[in-house]
Formats: sequence, C-alpha cells, structure tokens
Amino acid sequence: MKKSSSRASARRRLAPADLKNVEFTGGFWADRIKNNRSVTVPAEYNLCRKTGRIDAWTLKWKPGRPNQPHIFWDSDVAKWIEAAAYCLAARPDQKVEALVDGAVDMMARAQAKDGYLNSHYLAVEPGKRWTNLRDCHELYCAGHLMEAAVAYYEATGKRRMLDVLCRYADHIDSVFGRAKGRKRGYCGHEEIELALVKLYRATGVMRYLRLAKYFVDERGRKPHYFDIEAKARGDASPPDYSYCQAHRPVREQDKLEGHSVRALYLCSGMADVAAETGDAALLAACKRLWRNVTERRMYVTGGVGSAHSGERFTFDHDLPNESAYAETCANIALVFFAHRMLQIECDAQYADVMERALYNGVLSGISLDGKRFFYVNPLEQHPEAFRFNRWATQRQEWFGCACCPPNVARLLASIGKYAYSQGPGEVVAHLYAASRASFDIAGRTVRLEQATDYPWSGNVSIRLDVDGPADFALALRLPGWCRRPAVRVNGRAVRLPAVTRRGYARISRTWKAGDIVELSLPMPVERVEAHPAVRSDAGKIALQRGPLVYCLEEVDNGARLHDLRLPSKSRLTAKYEPRLLGGAVAVTGRAFRRSAAGWDGRLYRADRSAGRAANIKAVPYFLWNNRAPGEMLVWIRE
Amino acid sequence: MKKSSSRASARRRLAPADLKNVEFTGGFWADRIKNNRSVTVPAEYNLCRKTGRIDAWTLKWKPGRPNQPHIFWDSDVAKWIEAAAYCLAARPDQKVEALVDGAVDMMARAQAKDGYLNSHYLAVEPGKRWTNLRDCHELYCAGHLMEAAVAYYEATGKRRMLDVLCRYADHIDSVFGRAKGRKRGYCGHEEIELALVKLYRATGVMRYLRLAKYFVDERGRKPHYFDIEAKARGDASPPDYSYCQAHRPVREQDKLEGHSVRALYLCSGMADVAAETGDAALLAACKRLWRNVTERRMYVTGGVGSAHSGERFTFDHDLPNESAYAETCANIALVFFAHRMLQIECDAQYADVMERALYNGVLSGISLDGKRFFYVNPLEQHPEAFRFNRWATQRQEWFGCACCPPNVARLLASIGKYAYSQGPGEVVAHLYAASRASFDIAGRTVRLEQATDYPWSGNVSIRLDVDGPADFALALRLPGWCRRPAVRVNGRAVRLPAVTRRGYARISRTWKAGDIVELSLPMPVERVEAHPAVRSDAGKIALQRGPLVYCLEEVDNGARLHDLRLPSKSRLTAKYEPRLLGGAVAVTGRAFRRSAAGWDGRLYRADRSAGRAANIKAVPYFLWNNRAPGEMLVWIRE
Repeated sequence: MKKSSSRASARRRLAPADLKNVEFTGGFWADRIKNNRSVTVPAEYNLCRKTGRIDAWTLKWKPGRPNQPHIFWDSDVAKWIEAAAYCLAARPDQKVEALVDGAVDMMARAQAKDGYLNSHYLAVEPGKRWTNLRDCHELYCAGHLMEAAVAYYEATGKRRMLDVLCRYADHIDSVFGRAKGRKRGYCGHEEIELALVKLYRATGVMRYLRLAKYFVDERGRKPHYFDIEAKARGDASPPDYSYCQAHRPVREQDKLEGHSVRALYLCSGMADVAAETGDAALLAACKRLWRNVTERRMYVTGGVGSAHSGERFTFDHDLPNESAYAETCANIALVFFAHRMLQIECDAQYADVMERALYNGVLSGISLDGKRFFYVNPLEQHPEAFRFNRWATQRQEWFGCACCPPNVARLLASIGKYAYSQGPGEVVAHLYAASRASFDIAGRTVRLEQATDYPWSGNVSIRLDVDGPADFALALRLPGWCRRPAVRVNGRAVRLPAVTRRGYARISRTWKAGDIVELSLPMPVERVEAHPAVRSDAGKIALQRGPLVYCLEEVDNGARLHDLRLPSKSRLTAKYEPRLLGGAVAVTGRAFRRSAAGWDGRLYRADRSAGRAANIKAVPYFLWNNRAPGEMLVWIRE
Repeated sequence: MKKSSSRASARRRLAPADLKNVEFTGGFWADRIKNNRSVTVPAEYNLCRKTGRIDAWTLKWKPGRPNQPHIFWDSDVAKWIEAAAYCLAARPDQKVEALVDGAVDMMARAQAKDGYLNSHYLAVEPGKRWTNLRDCHELYCAGHLMEAAVAYYEATGKRRMLDVLCRYADHIDSVFGRAKGRKRGYCGHEEIELALVKLYRATGVMRYLRLAKYFVDERGRKPHYFDIEAKARGDASPPDYSYCQAHRPVREQDKLEGHSVRALYLCSGMADVAAETGDAALLAACKRLWRNVTERRMYVTGGVGSAHSGERFTFDHDLPNESAYAETCANIALVFFAHRMLQIECDAQYADVMERALYNGVLSGISLDGKRFFYVNPLEQHPEAFRFNRWATQRQEWFGCACCPPNVARLLASIGKYAYSQGPGEVVAHLYAASRASFDIAGRTVRLEQATDYPWSGNVSIRLDVDGPADFALALRLPGWCRRPAVRVNGRAVRLPAVTRRGYARISRTWKAGDIVELSLPMPVERVEAHPAVRSDAGKIALQRGPLVYCLEEVDNGARLHDLRLPSKSRLTAKYEPRLLGGAVAVTGRAFRRSAAGWDGRLYRADRSAGRAANIKAVPYFLWNNRAPGEMLVWIRE
C-alpha cells in the first residue's frame, strides 16, 4: 500500500505540499534553489566521492589503506541522495538519477543477508555491530538512509533503495524492542525515530511506526541501556545522559538539553509519532520542549545550542554572541521541529520560528555562491579570535564531520514543502515566495500563482486558478513580526480579526479562476530587544526588517563594531541595493562611536570619552562573510 | 661571598627592603599576613604532605603505587618552603623551621651524585632526564627550588638547602650552554632564569648569572631546540613555539604571547638579567613587552592571560569578562615583573600596575579565611555556566595542578619587599600600609613608622626616627589613580610639582627623629572606562576607589546583574562597613533595571522596555565569592 508522506493523519491537521507540485518562479528562493541544484548538490557529490564516502560502499577498505569508512559517513551520502531526490522531484535529471542509482546499486550489494547495512561496521569492524549505540551513530546512519530512500522513491517512483531500507528496517525491528531476546537500546544520536515515521508513511507498514514509538519511549528509562552496553564493552567512562537526551524518559523532559542537533531530531521524531498515534501526552511533551527552546534558548537568528563544548544547549537565557555555536544542522533541526508542529496545529508561532531560523541561522550556513559552509553561526565575530580556536571565521568547502553541507542542500531542495500545506478543504501558505503551486482539493485541482519579492518587500499577490468554482479555505500566514498586515480579495479589504485564528487569515469562499488575493505586510525596520534575562544582549538591540535579522560588517562600517552606539531615536532607512550581495535591502542610520585618540597608551581611564557621529550600514545576517573577512556584529549597543 | 638579594646593581636603582626589617603593625596587610602565616601556610604543608608531594623526595615510589610523583610537584613544595621562609624571616618559628629542615634533609639525600635533583625523574623516569624540556618542567622545578633555597638561607642563615641547590645549579651549568658537548636547550616553562639571578645575588657566583643570561638569550633561536629534542624522542606533534615564548629570540619579541605565567616569568628573568648586566637592549625588550601587556592585554583587575584554552594571551584588547582566565599565578607573575622594573627605574607606572594586580587580581585568588583559592579570576560570573565547564565558580582548597595556592602564600609572606625599597641615599615607599620599617642609609639606621588604614582611606602618616640628623631622600609614590595628592612635612605643604619625578614625590632633607610626613590621597569613587578597542567593555564602566576595583554580587543586588544600568550622573557613596567581609568600604548608588514582567513568554520583542530604579551595592572585587555563591559583575552598563 502506497501512502504519501504528504498525508494528513490522526493528529496532523495539515500535510506539506508535494514537491512535484510547487515551482519557484523567480526571485529569492528560485535563485537559491537553482544554485543549490546546479552548484551545491553536484559539488557535494564530488566531495563525497573524493573523500571515499561513496566507495566506502564497496566494502573493500582494508586496514592500512586510506579513507577508512567513518561511522557517520553513510549519513553524509544519505543526505546527499535525499537532496538529489528533492531536486529530481522538482526537475528530472538523468545524470543525477544515474549517480544516485549507482550509489544505490553499491548499497544493495553491500547489504548483509540479514538486512544489516552500514559501511563502517561491515568493512571496518565486522562483529562489532550494535555494541555502542551511544557513540557510534549506527541507527542514526540507518535513519538518514531511510529518509533518502523515501525521498528518492517519491521523486522517481523507483523502489530499489526503498526496498533495501525496508529490509534494513525489518532487521532493526528484529534486533530492538521490548520482546524477549531483543536489545532494549536506542541511538545516542536521534534520527531513526523520524525516519521510521517517514518509512511508515511511504509504505504503510505499521511496525515501522511502532518501532519509532519504541525508540522514543525507551529513551532515558532505567536501567540505562547505555550503562548496560558500556559495561559489556568494558567502558568505564562516566556517562553524560543528558548529552543524548537520555537523562530521563522523554515525556518527563521539560527542558531541551544536551547536543542540540540530537535534541531537535528527537523532538521532530516525537512530533511525528504524536501526529500518527494521536498520543496527547507525547504532544504535550513536544509543546513543553518547544516553549523551552523558543522562549529561552534560541538566538534571534533562530540559531540554537550555544556551547562549543559538546555542541549543546546550556541553560535558560545563556546566549553568548561571539562564542555562539548555533550549528547550522541544529538550526535546520529547529526548522524540522517547527515544520512538524505546524502541520499538527497550523499555529503561526511555529511558522514564525521556522521562518526566523530559515532566513537567518540556516541560510547563514551557506555562502552566496553555494560553495562554502559555516558549521558554526556566531552573532558576533572578531576575526583574530579564530587563531585561539574559539569561534567561527570563514565558511569552508567541507568538513571532516560533514553533516552541515548536505543538510543545507536537502533543506533548500525541499523548500516547497515548507512554503505550502494542505488540509481537508484548505490550502495554507506559510512562506511567501514567487511560485506556482497546485493542490488537489476534493477532486478539484486548485492552482495558486504567487507574485512577490519577499523578503525584500511584504507585498504579495496570489492569483487563483480552478477548473470551476470551488469551495475551500485559503489560509494565509500573518507573520508575527508584522504589526499591520492587510489582505484584499479582488480588491476588497478582508476584516482580519474576524477570520484570523492562530496567526492565519483563513478566507473561506467559493473561489473561481482569476480571483486575486493581495497581502500587504509592511516591513519597517524594527529594533528588537532580548528578554532581560539574556545577559549577552542587555543594553543592545538587533535590527530586524520583515523576517530578516541584520548585522554590521567591518567591510561597511570599519573595525571596532562593538563600540558603535545606535541611539533609540536615530532614523533608520531601508533601501534595496541591486548590486549589494546579489541584491539586498540594506539598512542605514546614524550612530556614534568613541575616538581612540587621546588615550595615550592607557588601557583604562576615569575621564569620559565623547561619542562622534558615524554612519552605519547593516546587511542581512544571512549574507555576512560573503565579502572581505572581518568583524561582524548583530546586537548593537543602544 | 655573601650577597644580599636586596643589593642594588649596575642597572637597578633600588633594592627591595629586607623582610626582616619590615613589620606590618595592624590593619589590612597585617591581618592578611597573619592569616597567611597561621592558616594558609600550615594548610598547604598538610596538603603537600597528604598528596604525597613531600614523601616524593624519599624516591620510594614504585610503579602501581599511589601518589606517583608528578613532573611539577617539586615546584609546589619549593613554593611552600619559600613561603615558610618569608614567614620565618618576619617571625621565627621552630616548628615551621623543623618542617622545612625535614624536607631539605630528604632532598639532600635524594640528590644524585652529579647534583641532579628532581623527584619525578629520579623516581619515575630514571634515564629520561633532560629529554623533554619543552613539556616537562624540569628546569622550572629546579628554579623554584633555587628560589626556596635562597629565601630559606636569607631567613635563617642555614646553608644546607642553598648548597644542595648550588650543586644542582652547577650540574645544570655543566649540561646546558653553548660550549661544545652541552645541550643548547632551555625550559618550556620559564622560571630558572629569574631563580639563577637570585642564586647569583645570594652567592656572588657569576656563572649562575651567565647561565641565566644563556637561558634568556638562547630562547627562540633556530634551529629550535624543541624540534631537536622532539625529533630525538620521536615526537611528531606540531610545535606551538609561541605557547612557550620561543617563536623568536626574546629581544625581537614585542608582544606578550602564549602561556601567561611562562611569559611573565620570562619577563621577570629578562629584567633581572638586564638589571645585573646593564644590557640596554634587553631592558628595551622588557619595556616593549611591559607596554604591550599593560596597555593592551591586562584586565582592570590586573588579571592577565584571557584564554582558558592554553591559559594564554590572545590578541590586543581581547579581554572577555565572563570567560576571562586571568590565572592567579599569572597575575602574581605580573606583580613580579612590575616589581623588578620598579627596582630598575623607580617609575610609578610599574608600581601602579603592581598595586592594581596585587589588590585585585591577586588577592581575589584567596578566600577571606585563607583556606580556598581561585585558579581563574573572571570579571563576570553566572554560576550556572560552571556546569558547562566554561569558567570559574567557587574557590577550591587545592588543585591537581596546585601552582596557585603556594604562589599566593609566598607573595603574601613577602609583601614587605613590595612595600619599600631603598637606593643610594634614598628610602622609597611604594605601597601604603600600617607598618614599621628600618633601613641602613650610609651607616645610619633610619626607621619609618607608618600609620594608615589604606586602602580604605588615603590618609597616611609617616613618623621618622633616626639616631641623629640624617641627609637622605624619602620618596613617596603618588598613585596614578589619585588626582589630587597632597604631602605635608611637619605640617607644611610640599609643593609636589617641584619634587615629583616619575610619580614619586622625592623629599630630600636633613631628617631628624620625630619628623612627620603626611600624605593625603583623596579616594572618590571613579567610573573607569576601557579603551574603545576593548570590545567586551564598550558602554560599560568599572567602579574603582583608590587601588580597589569594585564588583556587584548577587547576594547584595539580586540576580540579573547584567541588566542593571548605572547612569553616568548617579551619585555614588562610599562607606566603611565594619561588619562587611571583615570590614570593607562598600559603594552604593542608584541604578535602573528592566522588568521581566510583560514579556509573556517572548524571548525577543520590538516594544521597548522601561527601566525601574534599583539601588546597587558594590564591594571590592578581591572580596567576591566569600558569601553566598551567585552572579558577579565588574563592568556595569552605563
């Protein structure tokens, strides 16, 4: 039985749009998606190949040879296949399909008779499989392969990889669980949970959902499986349960702890299981964790996980700027969690965070040319700090642990899923972008054509096309950042209070071809303040316009950005500059900075310095580090 | 030939006072010195004993037994002996002397026939001596033993330890140097350089000075000795020359780089060699490095070495507050360097930094009760950050690497050397404290009796006592923090501009018994600003009164200290509180803080928060963390 991953379910009000039915027609996202398809995805394939990640599947590695398959290599290749599959869904490409088929072929041949599939364990440590779930990413890699298999199946209809991964899932199901003789384990790095729900949705095989639910619920129970397996290995290192969210059962957790990517992949899997099973207690746990991360542990860029050491969450309101970790993968994982909660509840609070992370802390992860990546996304940078191994500096082509580049690629290739959803009798627009999308509503094909230059302006025009008059609701997200949104249907204003629920204006009517919906989302430059408990941002503001957070760069403003002070009454001007960073709105205004003259070699003094006027220019945060290297600053003194 | 370490020399205008001739008679330093003698020094002996550091000298350790002598243990014991010796110089104590004699006895028996002496190498790695100068602290331990031997000899007149260490120094001299067949090595952790100059001053043996000069000058030359020995060991790890100041010859260095304690022990040794040899180029290098550290790399507390990773200097103006390392030993080492430069030039710039470090970043290293120590001295603390292994939190009784506790003890026990100096025909007061001191000036005994409650007030009265009328100059430091100092002799005002040079008022006259010199150093509360290039302190001020830097603690001000804003016009009041932290001046004033109400779960918002009045109370920084644990903040938003 084929099911679509776009299916709504027991507890999921909406399903994301089918990628095949969304086309970005120009402007912001079309540019990025094209660049992703033509530059990033091919480059990542080549890097996977060059570094031995593809050939690992030959299982020919022998001790002493180069390119020993690493425990997480399978996940890099899997994310590349998933990205390629999303590209193929939008636009067939025989060459890319051949590359994927080649890799799938190697995988199929590598698969053990019992279904087991992991290039590291099969080639490097045969006999050691499933002995260190805590540290060795085995089920994590399996999960990524499942996601890739589902994506490739849905894009091309080819079942081979899906079948391989179903056999692997069946094998995993035979090894893990509460039945006698099975291991009561779970992965130190979550991922398998959400992947199994995808596999269930694609195949309808209930045991995959049950296994996902088992992995979610087993986590953190006592006796700790990680202790049991550590003892069996003779590993006496002290356990750090919270690092992998195993400090207590997930339903009892109320703060997002530990490694940030793991934590948010877990939340995504929990939301998926809750959506499919209607498990209200699990959904309540998701909501508690959502509130904790978004109300206390998230940068204004949507970045999450503030500590370098352990790539982890620390404590409430601990959001240092220069030393921010905010790993690109963690910010992507926040998008995943938000997207899942949004499908369940259609509440704009989820879309607001999803959009914040996407346009800021996720897009900052990739260079404008699509060739280089940030692992870490600080909100402030002094370029010399890099020498002391402290924080980020320049984007890199690739990393030894290359999780971020293909994660960005698969997200960019699937933006269509994030832009629109549909539910019973409704079409929902979450993100605004020049695009064409079509939906099947009660047997009728509904087409939307959206024109906008969002995020540079907030004017959106949507033209509807239906075969004949059709009754359905068009729900339009009214972004949380917008103070005075307005909607007109065929030129007539909609009274928003009457139709708005949970941040969506829901316009129910009999639509006919040629109907025009216009959305006006005024985007003044806002000065954003952080909660008084955030000690790094006290006395500072961040500039935001629409969904975009801004930053100052040394190339525009000179060095010593920290010393600039922007008075609360300075007028700020936003202007589109076609030649700035591929075309972007810059924000300018008048600030003050102290003079370094007159200090005469003193480092401290009791005399007071006067400020001197200085013009500042801010650019969107996600575009930083695409020109000369140098200082960068998001939070500006006021 | 006996020489005194208090001897002036070719290039050294002043010599520190002899500890036997300085007595602290009450108040600030007398309290601390008494506590050091009666609490800290005995406790440290017991900890050295308990942890096996004393018994290591039996050389009876065998593989598999506990308490394997560590490579730097000798230095801990040596610093304890040095501290005990300074205590004995001020006040004989047979019990303490017996403890030292016992340890010296063990050392003498442990010493190899050729003079070699190191409890780790003799017991744990015989045959490996001098194979890893870069990492293994061998010459560093030797240096500390030499300092201890000189101190104990000068305190008690007992030569045994001095003789043991002279034999060791002779052995070292036979191993290292430029002569054929000798190793052209030097220590990865400087210390031997300054120690050999002390040994030279105590014994008059010129080869110790020459060996010190060799170690200073050989450092950083090519080919790198550390490469040569690493190759011999088969160690291919990448070298980090600057970590141990070996990136270039010391005379070519103009920035203080690498491990901060090492860097400042090196500077101290360079200054000592320059003082004894009259080497102008070496002195010029000292001045360049002095300027770099004090004008660009020093916290307002006199703390130095901002990075946890590598315990090192980073780059100019990089002085993060919460993550400040500012190791107690590094701050002490800055005092050492300052003290040496001060004897050479009698310039108050050195005394100002010495006093700043001493009263703030050094004294913060020890608890009020003398029992606990900070390794790290941040300028801002959030107590939860500790869980994520980031910065300091509570003082500890001891450390595995226990360099700081005995370093504090030896400095406190020898404060008399820092308070006064004498030169030909002059007596110099650098630090003000209730004390009696005597000097031999051209055959006459000159006694000073100083009454003051400095640092709580700036009123100082000095009564002179001489056998008969005596011509000499009394030089009084006019602290750099004081805007309007005044001096009266027998009630008559001294015209300071006429007699002040390099920050010292030099009053030359025929002194007679009963002459009274009064010094008035007004101490308003000052708001100190950091240089505009210090990015962590922009928009903030530190409160300072006299030599003391102040801080806010949670126990007085509630949590969220970072959110307090102290307007530039708020009146600040200083008041002595006898029951506060053993008696201290607190500073109070009116500030503002935002309310956390009305945020309704939001982490960021574009509405502006208003401030609400809040009274603040600041206490001297060095006294922080002696009450309830909690937040602490030096730099306050303005």
